[in-house]
Amino acid sequence: LQKLVEAEGWMFPIDLGSRGSCQVGGNAATNAGGCRVIKYGNTRASVLGLEAVLADGSVIGPPNKLVKNNSGYSLTQLLVGSEGTLGVITRLALKLVPLPAARHSLLLALAPATTPERGLDHVLRRCKFELGGALSAAEAMWPDFLAGAVAARPQVRSLPAGFANRLALLVELEGDRHEALARMAESFAEKLFEEGLIEEAVLPASERDAQSLWQLRECIPELQAGIRPYVGFDLGLDPAQYEAFVRRARERLARTLPQVRAYFFGHVGDGNLHAMIGPCRTPEEVREAELALYEQLTPLATCVTAEHGVGRKKKAYLGSSRSPADIEAMKAIKRALDPQGILNPGRIF
Amino acid sequence: LQKLVEAEGWMFPIDLGSRGSCQVGGNAATNAGGCRVIKYGNTRASVLGLEAVLADGSVIGPPNKLVKNNSGYSLTQLLVGSEGTLGVITRLALKLVPLPAARHSLLLALAPATTPERGLDHVLRRCKFELGGALSAAEAMWPDFLAGAVAARPQVRSLPAGFANRLALLVELEGDRHEALARMAESFAEKLFEEGLIEEAVLPASERDAQSLWQLRECIPELQAGIRPYVGFDLGLDPAQYEAFVRRARERLARTLPQVRAYFFGHVGDGNLHAMIGPCRTPEEVREAELALYEQLTPLATCVTAEHGVGRKKKAYLGSSRSPADIEAMKAIKRALDPQGILNPGRIF
Repeated sequence: LQKLVEAEGWMFPIDLGSRGSCQVGGNAATNAGGCRVIKYGNTRASVLGLEAVLADGSVIGPPNKLVKNNSGYSLTQLLVGSEGTLGVITRLALKLVPLPAARHSLLLALAPATTPERGLDHVLRRCKFELGGALSAAEAMWPDFLAGAVAARPQVRSLPAGFANRLALLVELEGDRHEALARMAESFAEKLFEEGLIEEAVLPASERDAQSLWQLRECIPELQAGIRPYVGFDLGLDPAQYEAFVRRARERLARTLPQVRAYFFGHVGDGNLHAMIGPCRTPEEVREAELALYEQLTPLATCVTAEHGVGRKKKAYLGSSRSPADIEAMKAIKRALDPQGILNPGRIF
Repeated sequence: LQKLVEAEGWMFPIDLGSRGSCQVGGNAATNAGGCRVIKYGNTRASVLGLEAVLADGSVIGPPNKLVKNNSGYSLTQLLVGSEGTLGVITRLALKLVPLPAARHSLLLALAPATTPERGLDHVLRRCKFELGGALSAAEAMWPDFLAGAVAARPQVRSLPAGFANRLALLVELEGDRHEALARMAESFAEKLFEEGLIEEAVLPASERDAQSLWQLRECIPELQAGIRPYVGFDLGLDPAQYEAFVRRARERLARTLPQVRAYFFGHVGDGNLHAMIGPCRTPEEVREAELALYEQLTPLATCVTAEHGVGRKKKAYLGSSRSPADIEAMKAIKRALDPQGILNPGRIF
């Protein structure tokens, strides 16, 4: 889909690590996120309408193609993210955006925050505010992740020494002209540097050079390979909490699971923190890794599944992310549309 | 809300003619649209989460504040646009965007389309493609509307003679610097002029001058006053159909309701065509005005309520915009959440 529309100057803006293997119906069923949600929203923002087969065999649709249609409930928005439990999506009408003429990225090594107000959250706010509509991604990599990625992909690129032991933020910009983006990136980095918010920056000299930064961010398979069997996390929480959250999680893991490595990274620009912790070889170790992170979450203000859905693995934790009244209302909808529970049974509830 | 957040450099991007009188809970309950949907989406795109009281007295929420949260069904997205029939919204978590530093507008008088490929739809595509992320509104005014607005608000501004009897398109741009927007607007208008797609353009010299163009677009109350009692329309249809649609509607009205005036205008950039037809003094005249427009709509590919909701007035036409299976699924959801039908009875169904 992306190749097809890019050839005509348009873009389908959902961009996932699983590009090339995931399918667009699954993207809609799970309301997939990815790297550019900060600018373009989740999959639900790109779905205008859908056709789906319901449990009773009826077919809702045809897919709405109008940007504005307020004729009754949005079954589309209900089915997006329902993980196949309310209907089987068979057709989609998707919204495209013009393919930006230019992209640019920069990598920042954050200075250790001298006060909570000068940490990652502040830098993210500055990105949103000062880069405005040009900002298309803001991805964090904690030091272990970045060091592991550089070690695993030595041919990709080296990084200045100032990145050692620093939280790194990979920022992407989109716009009309590459020169304007490069200037914007440079003056933004200079400003942060002068204010002592960053210690080092990589300002790529070319689009290819910028791509190499993304190859480090996407070094997930190699890092996973070194910690199998691992537990993956997909947390949603306020970026203001990240640094303390990660520090406390590491302290606890050092006590309870001293043999594991924990890689923290994620789409922090939209409040989505990922972690991979392993090896966790027994159910008890898996459980302990989960508790190390989940017990720190504020019930109903954070979530255990920001972009991947509940499925079977997160079912036990649904109650930490949704209130009892929410869950009852969801179940009432499920019963109304699938009274016999034949659609994707065992997921979510 | 808008004033509060603009004072801190942010923007709540829903912008309606009823700003100053509408309420944000109503905006969410009706999934309100307005002028900037083309850039920022409907209200649902700005609602992160909500609290609502359901028919059984239970309270769903608290409002999700996370940009990414895939923990179960999105009750928020189901309730947005449900017109108070599924729950009473009591709190909202809204998403803000940075307030753009500069805005600019231009008014184009479209050349009569020599081929269907050179009409309004083509110019709109050019706007989207060539103005890209800077495009924040694209509003059409048919000749009667524009002439009526200029006559009703003579103190606002005059227009060049080239606008007489021409479909006018009011385009708004947002960005960092006013000069850059003005240059972009000028070179865009020049290009369209050289290609023969427009015959005339107003390129305002100042932000205040640009505002005067919007005062013409917002001359709704005066135009309504001259045609009371009028019938208002809120159609969603593909912009490629507009010009033929309006022409056919006028031909039919000239035959069946020769005494009425019909003003056509709307948020054409997002496929939303408005009309006001009046005076229609009897139920038969109202019905005839409705048929003149609705009978031309392609069932299930267009809609009779793009941004205002079904309410009571559009109930009879719900079946033209949604399929029987859709309506059955909506009713099943309504029965599941409000079995006694106590919430906003008589709306939608």
